[in-house]
Amino acid sequence: MSEDHRADVVLENIMTTRAIRRFTHEPVSDAEVLECLRAAQQAPSGGNVQPQQYLVVTEPEVRARVAAWYGRAYHRYEASLDDPAEFRSDDDRRSWERTRDASRHLADNMADVPVLVLFLQPRIAWGSEDDEGPLDIGRLDASVYPAVQNFCLAARAHGLGTALTTVIRVYTDEVLADLGVPADRYEIAALVPVGHPTGRFGVARRKPVEAVTHWNRFGDRRR
Amino acid sequence: MSEDHRADVVLENIMTTRAIRRFTHEPVSDAEVLECLRAAQQAPSGGNVQPQQYLVVTEPEVRARVAAWYGRAYHRYEASLDDPAEFRSDDDRRSWERTRDASRHLADNMADVPVLVLFLQPRIAWGSEDDEGPLDIGRLDASVYPAVQNFCLAARAHGLGTALTTVIRVYTDEVLADLGVPADRYEIAALVPVGHPTGRFGVARRKPVEAVTHWNRFGDRRR
Repeated sequence: MSEDHRADVVLENIMTTRAIRRFTHEPVSDAEVLECLRAAQQAPSGGNVQPQQYLVVTEPEVRARVAAWYGRAYHRYEASLDDPAEFRSDDDRRSWERTRDASRHLADNMADVPVLVLFLQPRIAWGSEDDEGPLDIGRLDASVYPAVQNFCLAARAHGLGTALTTVIRVYTDEVLADLGVPADRYEIAALVPVGHPTGRFGVARRKPVEAVTHWNRFGDRRR
Repeated sequence: MSEDHRADVVLENIMTTRAIRRFTHEPVSDAEVLECLRAAQQAPSGGNVQPQQYLVVTEPEVRARVAAWYGRAYHRYEASLDDPAEFRSDDDRRSWERTRDASRHLADNMADVPVLVLFLQPRIAWGSEDDEGPLDIGRLDASVYPAVQNFCLAARAHGLGTALTTVIRVYTDEVLADLGVPADRYEIAALVPVGHPTGRFGVARRKPVEAVTHWNRFGDRRR
C-alpha cells in the first residue's frame, strides 16, 4: 500500500466521521462491536494504564432502561440551556436547529438503537507529588477520550454511525446501579450509540483550522 | 473504494499508531502539520463548540524554550514515581524499561523534534444547571482529546510519529507566559511532538479487549 493511498483513505475516513443520531433497525453484530473496541483499546493512555472498561448493551430490555435515563438527562439538559440570542447567519441558525432536532430524535429513540456502548473510567486519584507539592499532569480523561474517538473512527470505516454523548452523566448513579457497575470504582466517560445511519456520512461544519492555529507565538496566525 | 478495503486501511492505521519518542532530523512541512490539524478540527465536541486552539512551535529557539520546560517537568515527574515493586513477567519488566528509556530520551531531546504542537483548551465553566441543581454533563476534555487523537492518526497516515504527552502541565503558567498565551483564558491539554520516527510503526502492547468488555451487565464477560 502506498503512503499516499493510506493517507487518502485515513483522512477521508476521519473527515467524514460525524455524529450520527438517526439509525435504521439493521442489526450490528457482536463481532463488529469487538473490532471497534479493539481499535479503542489501542489508543494511548498515560503510563499505558489503559484505564477504561467497556459495557456493551445489546439486550432490548437493558437498552430500554439505559435509554430512559438518557432521555430524562437529555431533556433536563436541553431545558436548562438558553436558546442562542442571535445567529451570524441563517445558515448558522438552520444548522443549530437541525442538530437540536437530531439530538432530540436520538434522545427519544435511543432504545431502538441496536447497540449502546458505555465507556467507564475509574474514579482514581491521578497525578503525583514531590517535595514542592502536587504535580498536575492532567486528568484521566486524556486517557479515555482518545479510545472513544478510535472507536467512532473504526465504526465509521465499517459503515456504522456513532455519536459521542456525555449527558447521561446527569444520572450516573442510577445508570451504574442499574447495570451492576460498582459506583465507588467507576464513572461514565461517554455513552456511544452504534447503528447503521439512515442518512449518509459527510463532512460536519467546523471553523476553518487556520482561524484557531497559531505559529510559534499565540496570536501569530500566519508565518 | 470498497467498504472492506476502507475498513482494512483505517483499522491498520489505528492499530499501528503508537507513541513515537525518537525522531530523525528530517523536517516536517507546515502543509503536513495543517493537514493533520484539519483532521483534529473535524473531531466532535459538546454542542459543536470546537473549544481548542493549536499552537504550532517550529522555530528552533522557541522549541528549545518549550523543550526546557518539558524536560524539567518530565524529570520531576519521573522522580516522583515509585518503581513498580514487581512485574508479572520479564516481558512486562523489559517493556516498562523500554518505555521509560524512550520517555527519557524524548524529554532530553525534545528541542530537536521538528514540530511541537500544543493543544490549548479554554478555562471556561462547562455544564449547566436547573431547579434541581447542577447538571454534570462531563468535562471539556471530552471535546479536546478526540481532536488530539485525530491529529495523531492523520500524522501516522503520513508517516509521521507523535506522542500524546501531558506532563508539561506541571509548568503550565511558565509555558503560557513564554508563548504569549493568555493564562486566564487557556490551559494546556496536550503537547504533541511531531517528526519522522527513527524506528518503525507497530502495534503497541495492550490488554486483550475481551478482558475489559462487559455485555449488558458489569461482570458478564461472555454472552
